[in-house]
Amino acid sequence: MSGLRVPEAVPSPEEDCERLNKAFEGFGTDEEAVIWILGHRNASQRRKIRDTYQQLYNKSLIDALQSELSGDFRDAVILWTYDPPERDAKVARDALMKKKKGIKHLKVLVEIACASSPQHLMAVRQVYGSLFECSLEEDIASTLSLPLRKLLLGLVSSYRYDRQVVDSSIASSEASKLYEAIKAKQLDHNHVVSILSTRNMFQLRETFECYKQNYGTSIDENIKSCGSGDLESLLTLVITCIDTPEKHFAQVIKDSVVGLGTDEDSLNRAIVSRAEIDMIKIREEYSKLSKTSLEGDVIDDTSGEYKNFLLTLLGQRF
Amino acid sequence: MSGLRVPEAVPSPEEDCERLNKAFEGFGTDEEAVIWILGHRNASQRRKIRDTYQQLYNKSLIDALQSELSGDFRDAVILWTYDPPERDAKVARDALMKKKKGIKHLKVLVEIACASSPQHLMAVRQVYGSLFECSLEEDIASTLSLPLRKLLLGLVSSYRYDRQVVDSSIASSEASKLYEAIKAKQLDHNHVVSILSTRNMFQLRETFECYKQNYGTSIDENIKSCGSGDLESLLTLVITCIDTPEKHFAQVIKDSVVGLGTDEDSLNRAIVSRAEIDMIKIREEYSKLSKTSLEGDVIDDTSGEYKNFLLTLLGQRF
Repeated sequence: MSGLRVPEAVPSPEEDCERLNKAFEGFGTDEEAVIWILGHRNASQRRKIRDTYQQLYNKSLIDALQSELSGDFRDAVILWTYDPPERDAKVARDALMKKKKGIKHLKVLVEIACASSPQHLMAVRQVYGSLFECSLEEDIASTLSLPLRKLLLGLVSSYRYDRQVVDSSIASSEASKLYEAIKAKQLDHNHVVSILSTRNMFQLRETFECYKQNYGTSIDENIKSCGSGDLESLLTLVITCIDTPEKHFAQVIKDSVVGLGTDEDSLNRAIVSRAEIDMIKIREEYSKLSKTSLEGDVIDDTSGEYKNFLLTLLGQRF
Repeated sequence: MSGLRVPEAVPSPEEDCERLNKAFEGFGTDEEAVIWILGHRNASQRRKIRDTYQQLYNKSLIDALQSELSGDFRDAVILWTYDPPERDAKVARDALMKKKKGIKHLKVLVEIACASSPQHLMAVRQVYGSLFECSLEEDIASTLSLPLRKLLLGLVSSYRYDRQVVDSSIASSEASKLYEAIKAKQLDHNHVVSILSTRNMFQLRETFECYKQNYGTSIDENIKSCGSGDLESLLTLVITCIDTPEKHFAQVIKDSVVGLGTDEDSLNRAIVSRAEIDMIKIREEYSKLSKTSLEGDVIDDTSGEYKNFLLTLLGQRF
């Protein structure tokens, strides 16, 4: 399901590092070489390149990229070069430390908690502690207020069972609990938080299906009809990230390229974080959603090395 | 801080397995050999012995111990032979699956969540999923009711920062939040659950100290004065497990040997789970608490191989 293209014969990390270092030499940087190397390596290969670079040149590859590249291109390459758990720990911290935390910033926490594997979320929490001297949960508890705090605390603390085990009687009874809470407009009811943050993804998809069958409307539509506040917005996102993460990320990319100007942070995050997960599905959803192609819209909205790098991650340049 | 004594020159796992297999041969079992080997190996050595035994003899060491040993001795040796996260996942599951879940059974969940390292708790959750096809949180959510469910869900989902970082202004403000909630007898207030399940252990100890200084009474005394229900009892245990786990386990051992008869399950669990962590501190606390020696009381209350095995784990036989 990955968009990323890794060559069949991958050079050794030492060779990659030497070529990167050569690309950095002298005045100016060979950006195409940087794209060519890093844009065609998977997460574990990039990790080895970072470690090897540190050993060979006694400096951090991230620092080198920081000083050699610039603009949106630099931001995207650096985001891609971090280990995925480190990347998401930093993105989560940034979101929580913003003075004005709009709902847009908090959505990243839902993505990490609900559209990632349980192992990834666990790794993000581990890295978070080692980078920031406190737990992700502490930062959520101390920077957010109810009801968002309660929902997000539950979600980021989850460690869902990760195999496909589904109990249809549980799906039915929990669909009913969700329905009752939503009907009473108690979107932060303990049942809601507890069901959404403890059940495995397959079980929850069955529960949402059951909800629709038993009550005639989808759960996200019912949540939206409760109001248009932050909790409704975040909870709808939770449902989408669990049910069809590819739809969510197709929408994020669409929103970031639509209209005048581009939201590069969102575009980078969506492409970088999903390039190795479900980019092919996202591309299909994108076509349905916007009647245009994802690559076409990225080409229209970006330029130069930045465009080339994103297209590489989308598997369009090799 | 461990009571366990491991020889300086440890035999190879193959040698240990051959001696174990020899101990199992023929009619009857050489229990002393089993104690001598397994009772003097740390967790990682025992794991290697289990793996090697499986490879050499194509059967599980746990199964062999199950059929070769008997009674309390067998239970204690098997508990000790499990990998610690596997052991605690099984103990937690047993507690949750009991038809009549007394508060005594649920205490084990608090021990795992509050008297273990964050890494151990994470490992328990991982093993729990792989053994029981659901998450620990799902079982808590589906088998317990409020308010215990809310407290335990928060605690087992925690992944605390694990180094000594303390902020005294946070300690003071959170001591005040805890005081207000306890004064209002709202022991399951969001603040209480959130503070106790997100902050690191060092921070929480400072908060409890602050509580005592600012309000003249210790937090656990104030909780006890709210009533004698399950929530008060469990919450007091949370405080003790975070503040002074050695006091809690000294009390567990004391309670299990006091009076007529012995509570072998509790005795086994306390000695097995703490032998490699803080048994020396527990021994000191035990002396203060009961004016007798821990070893003396274990000798008085147990016999035969069972007694010899526990004394070995307590570091008294080598």
